[in-house]
Amino acid sequence: MNGHRLFTALDLAGTFAFAISGAVAARDRGLDWFGVVAIAFAVACGGGVVRDVCIGAVPPVGLTDWRYLAAALAASLLTISAHAMVVRISHPVIIFDSIGLALFAVTGAQKTMILGHDAEAAVLLGVVTAVGGGVVRDVLLNRVPIILRREIYASAALVGAAIEVAGERLGWLSIGRTWVAVASCFALRCLALRYKWSLPRFSGGDDSP
Amino acid sequence: MNGHRLFTALDLAGTFAFAISGAVAARDRGLDWFGVVAIAFAVACGGGVVRDVCIGAVPPVGLTDWRYLAAALAASLLTISAHAMVVRISHPVIIFDSIGLALFAVTGAQKTMILGHDAEAAVLLGVVTAVGGGVVRDVLLNRVPIILRREIYASAALVGAAIEVAGERLGWLSIGRTWVAVASCFALRCLALRYKWSLPRFSGGDDSP
Amino acid sequence: MNGHRLFTALDLAGTFAFAISGAVAARDRGLDWFGVVAIAFAVACGGGVVRDVCIGAVPPVGLTDWRYLAAALAASLLTISAHAMVVRISHPVIIFDSIGLALFAVTGAQKTMILGHDAEAAVLLGVVTAVGGGVVRDVLLNRVPIILRREIYASAALVGAAIEVAGERLGWLSIGRTWVAVASCFALRCLALRYKWSLPRFSGGDDSP
Repeated sequence: MNGHRLFTALDLAGTFAFAISGAVAARDRGLDWFGVVAIAFAVACGGGVVRDVCIGAVPPVGLTDWRYLAAALAASLLTISAHAMVVRISHPVIIFDSIGLALFAVTGAQKTMILGHDAEAAVLLGVVTAVGGGVVRDVLLNRVPIILRREIYASAALVGAAIEVAGERLGWLSIGRTWVAVASCFALRCLALRYKWSLPRFSGGDDSP
Repeated sequence: MNGHRLFTALDLAGTFAFAISGAVAARDRGLDWFGVVAIAFAVACGGGVVRDVCIGAVPPVGLTDWRYLAAALAASLLTISAHAMVVRISHPVIIFDSIGLALFAVTGAQKTMILGHDAEAAVLLGVVTAVGGGVVRDVLLNRVPIILRREIYASAALVGAAIEVAGERLGWLSIGRTWVAVASCFALRCLALRYKWSLPRFSGGDDSP
Repeated sequence: MNGHRLFTALDLAGTFAFAISGAVAARDRGLDWFGVVAIAFAVACGGGVVRDVCIGAVPPVGLTDWRYLAAALAASLLTISAHAMVVRISHPVIIFDSIGLALFAVTGAQKTMILGHDAEAAVLLGVVTAVGGGVVRDVLLNRVPIILRREIYASAALVGAAIEVAGERLGWLSIGRTWVAVASCFALRCLALRYKWSLPRFSGGDDSP
């Protein structure tokens, strides 16, 4: 498997993991099957749609590339028909979710730079690509987005996107900086999960979902 | 009345019914008059704005065609000044809402194809046009969008948009396929209301609004 | 200080006040520091991003002008490190917030007209620029947007944007009408705060946030 194919395979695995997170949350909330598919699809392509609208790449790739819809359908089918199995594979799903986070952050930043936009927009839209779908999911399910409340998640995406953009500005080779950026984001996210790192908070706050 | 005029009249009636659904929900939630008008307007043009932004048709028609704003103002005025009457006409409003759903789904898919985008985007954006306003309403009123929770509503829009797009690909005559698509969506929605059809759900879930 | 510099200084003060409102609300809700910065940034540039996407001015200025991000970072730092002080300056912050409201409404309408769009879009997008960030803040914090529930806030923005657009159509001099529009919106908002004006509501409604 060469680098490009590996990249595509990882991207699909990440998209599928994102869709699973949406389908499981929608099912737990008691939505019907249309709602489950809709939320799964929103997580899989929501961040990319917002990015593409912001950089003028219309129609957004999430609405024209059938693989996002296929990932949402497959994740919904699996979640509905084999819920016990989905619970059992929750550990690999978290790993794939972290891969998706890293790839989406870096490729989101890349696409923004390729269209000629500046470094700040590239970093911000890298983060939006990676976490936007999860934010849409939580807004539709009527809860404060989990990424704003705890854990190193969006901040790991920020590190990945920033390394990619800084590397491009410093003239690093494309293939090298991409893998360094993806690996950094992925490693940071996994370490945070393993050691339960989280960012500080500043008040009693309301912890309910 | 010729076909085109009938189409425009139905479109206006549907838009008005959408605005009524927003104004009533906002009033019940205790919003002030600005909030009532804002929610009514959001339901009337929200789906179309998202569609137009996604296909690059800016500024969105909802912001430039005064009839959407007029429908929102009329619906708000009626809901505020004659609430008892609005409750009494709830049955015709549901019929107009179903007409709006069918027309928005089919015309949303049409507009996407006219701008040269592919079939998947056309079907998806047809559904977004039809149900987007209702989703925005529910997100602003802080509840899980009702279309994700029960009833055949978004799925009827999906059927209408899919028939329109499939008909175009199969070379059906434009006027014929449009009416078939609109009628199918409308009939499915009415049958679902009449016989209380809904899509299956998969867990105990949280049923509160 | 000449007119243009005064304008820029007021714009920055308004952006900063918007960011403070986001940082304080996010801190009170118990978000971590990433969440605090994200909400502060969303309030500072959210309305402008929606406006720019709707008029095709991509990438939105909020993502490319570093001053929005700087305002969000400064406001977050201040809110986290010196919360007691932020509470003490809440009165000046309300004044700056009203300045931001007035400037965002008027400049939002201006930018829409400069890009050649019509009067209705200009007024609507002026209001969206002014209040959009606050709506995004409240949606992300899972509550009904406060501007839809009480007080003269969005309606003051509407007055400012409408005066600017009407003045342009009537051929008033640019500099004169801008200051009249800004001053009208600001004065209306301050009078509403001082005398606790609010728009009428129409039902018992749910008052909880």
